[in-house]
Order: sequence, then C-alpha cells, then structure tokens
Amino acid sequence: MSDAEQMQDRLEYRFTDTGLLEQALTHRSLGPHNNERLEYLGDSLLNMYVAEKLYRQFPDLREGDLTGMRAGLVCRESLAALARSLNLHMCLRMGKGEFTMGGQHRDSILSNALESVVGAIYLDSDQPRTWQVLDRLFDGPFKGISTCVRKGPKSLLQEFLQKSGRPLPKYRLVGQAGKSHDPEFTIGCSVTGCDREFLARGASRKQAEYRAAEKALEYLLKS
Amino acid sequence: MSDAEQMQDRLEYRFTDTGLLEQALTHRSLGPHNNERLEYLGDSLLNMYVAEKLYRQFPDLREGDLTGMRAGLVCRESLAALARSLNLHMCLRMGKGEFTMGGQHRDSILSNALESVVGAIYLDSDQPRTWQVLDRLFDGPFKGISTCVRKGPKSLLQEFLQKSGRPLPKYRLVGQAGKSHDPEFTIGCSVTGCDREFLARGASRKQAEYRAAEKALEYLLKS
Repeated sequence: MSDAEQMQDRLEYRFTDTGLLEQALTHRSLGPHNNERLEYLGDSLLNMYVAEKLYRQFPDLREGDLTGMRAGLVCRESLAALARSLNLHMCLRMGKGEFTMGGQHRDSILSNALESVVGAIYLDSDQPRTWQVLDRLFDGPFKGISTCVRKGPKSLLQEFLQKSGRPLPKYRLVGQAGKSHDPEFTIGCSVTGCDREFLARGASRKQAEYRAAEKALEYLLKS
Repeated sequence: MSDAEQMQDRLEYRFTDTGLLEQALTHRSLGPHNNERLEYLGDSLLNMYVAEKLYRQFPDLREGDLTGMRAGLVCRESLAALARSLNLHMCLRMGKGEFTMGGQHRDSILSNALESVVGAIYLDSDQPRTWQVLDRLFDGPFKGISTCVRKGPKSLLQEFLQKSGRPLPKYRLVGQAGKSHDPEFTIGCSVTGCDREFLARGASRKQAEYRAAEKALEYLLKS
C-alpha cells in the first residue's frame, strides 16, 4: 500500500479524484501545479470548522475566548502535529533541493499541506463529509480543550505546580472599588519561585481569582 | 411590515428561529445577550464563502491574488456597504447612548451586525442555504471584481485617467537583466500630474508593464 493510500486510511476518506490529493501533496518547489491554492481554501475551511465547533461546544464562552482558542487550534504548530499524526511527511512531493534540506519535516510545509488536503477533500466531496473527517482529526485537540475549560485555570495552575513539587498558589485581595451593586475586585496571585505577583480584576472575587490564575498559568507555561 | 421583516425580504430568507435574528441584531451596548458570538461565527463563514467563490471563479489566479481579493471583499467598509443595502441600520437594537451617538451608522457596528446575521442564518439553516443567500448578497461585488480581473490593470489605469481628462500613461523600459532564457525586465510607468514613476519587474515586458500599471492604479486610487 502506498504512503498516500495509508494516509487516506488514516483520514478514513477515499478520494474520488485522486488528482486533487496529488495536488494537495505537491509543494511549490515542484513547479506551478502545486498546493498553494488548495492551502488558501483549506485554511478558510479549517477556520470555519473550528469556529463552529467551538461555538457549539462552549455556549457560555465569549467571543474573545473562542477566538483565542481557535487561534491555538489552527496555529502552525498544532496543524503540523496533526499532519505528523497522519504521516503526511511521508507523502509530500517536493523538489530535490527542498527535500534534501529536510523540508518535509518543517512545520510550515506540513501545516500548509494539511490545509491543502482539507481543501481537496472539500472539493472532492462536500461540507458535511469534510466536517466528518475533521471531527476525527480534531477529536484529541477538542478533548484537550474541553478538559482545560472544565477544570478552569485555578485547578490547572494547582496541577501544574504540584507536578513540579511546588506549594499551592496564594491569592490575596488587593483592592475593591466600584459601587456595591457594581463592585470591582482586584486579586493578586503569587507562586513560589516566581518573583512577580499576577494581578487581575473582576466583578466578583471568584472571577478575579480565575483571571489571575489564568495570567500566572500563561506566564509559567511560556517561561 | 417591521424593519426586520423587510430585511428578511431583502435577504430572501425567512428565519425559522426569529430569536436568532433578534440576537444577531443586538449590539453589545444592550447587555450580555448580544451578537458578539454570532459575529465570530459569521466572520469565519464569510471568509470561507468568499474564499471558495474566488477559488472557483478564478482558476488561474495564484493564492496571493485570491487572498488580496478576499481581504477587499470582506473588509469592514465592504461589509458595511452590504449592510446598508439591506437597511440593516434600521433594524439594529442598541443601548440608548450608543444610538444617540449614531452608532447604527458606524461601519464597524454595521459590518459586525452583517457578520452576525450570516452566522444566524447558518445556525437557522445549513451551509447550502447560507451560500444561496450570500450569492445574492455578493452578486454585485463579484461582478465588479470579475470586470477588474478581465480588463486588467493597464485598461483600468487608462480608463481612470481618461475619466479625469488626462493623457494615456507612458511605459518605458528601464532595464533588462538575467540570462536570455531567464530574463528580467524593469518597466517604469509614468502618469501626467504625478511626479513619481512606478517601477516594476517581470519575466516579460508585458508582465512588468502589468505590474507597473497595478502600482500606479493603486497609488492613484488611494490619493
């Protein structure tokens, strides 16, 4: 069985027009009949798929949170990881120079090729069939995100610190402002081994703690 | 007939769930049950719709050109113009303060509301039905773009100058480089009343002239 056939097995999708699949796997280093146009189409499909999925999955989240989550799910690194899970790097067709330089392992080339394959599936079938394929492909990432959202940043921060053997984070009320019917709380969150305090405001202590934990977690995950 | 009913007539779409339409028309100044989440969904739908439409309509154009054209079609100003063609500003629900300041006429609010309405139609129906509505809505803009692409920048530049009673643009060969099998031409395009020359390179004189005209046109349309 060829690499491209194996990839179709992993996708659980068989192309009617295999020329579309071939084009989707062709890097521009191989000439003008490449995957750049399909990538453009696939990019917008993936954005819409993820936007819709998040919209339906998290009815209580605000637009800003959904946008942020979407950005994380369709960023270059995430898509490249999905491409690797399909062994897509085994199927890429590229110029000899690009191949010798290891282009088939580059995140940008892999994520573009994944977008192109999605564009090709859509042209080869329709939206419901494409969404089916994407549901399987994104099953892991969406489960991961659901867990994060369910647990919330305070639990995640606690777990993160426990894993590295550190004590629990400390929260303190830094200030309270606003009128009694419309108060605003400021909470500081401090973490052992980190010399700054993460401040956040909210309409309740709980909300401000949530946001402060979010900031601390974001900082720790980046550093 | 209410304004919202008139708008549905213009869209040639009747909502099954009129609550969705109401939400799509509700600006955030009116409280938490507003159109921000629908706008997020509609934005990605519009991007995908326009991406697909351009992909199919211009099989010879490259990804970069398609991306640029899409940006023009879904930019704030373009969407606000479409919103006005639907009299959407008559249907917006917003806080008194925002309304008094004329928020219903602001491009940002109108384009967001249009995106929200598109998101609401999709949730109320499905993709084919949404695409039908969008086909009517974008009929004008797509015809305009087709004309531009068919004519090309040299004709458009000529027309533009003739309309303002100016003489034809002048093209001159500024330089030629590269080997004979892979030449590179540089062309300068000058226009009466404009003290700069627009330079562009290309693999043929024709291609370089095309790009120089494109630059001149872009400059003149902006100034």
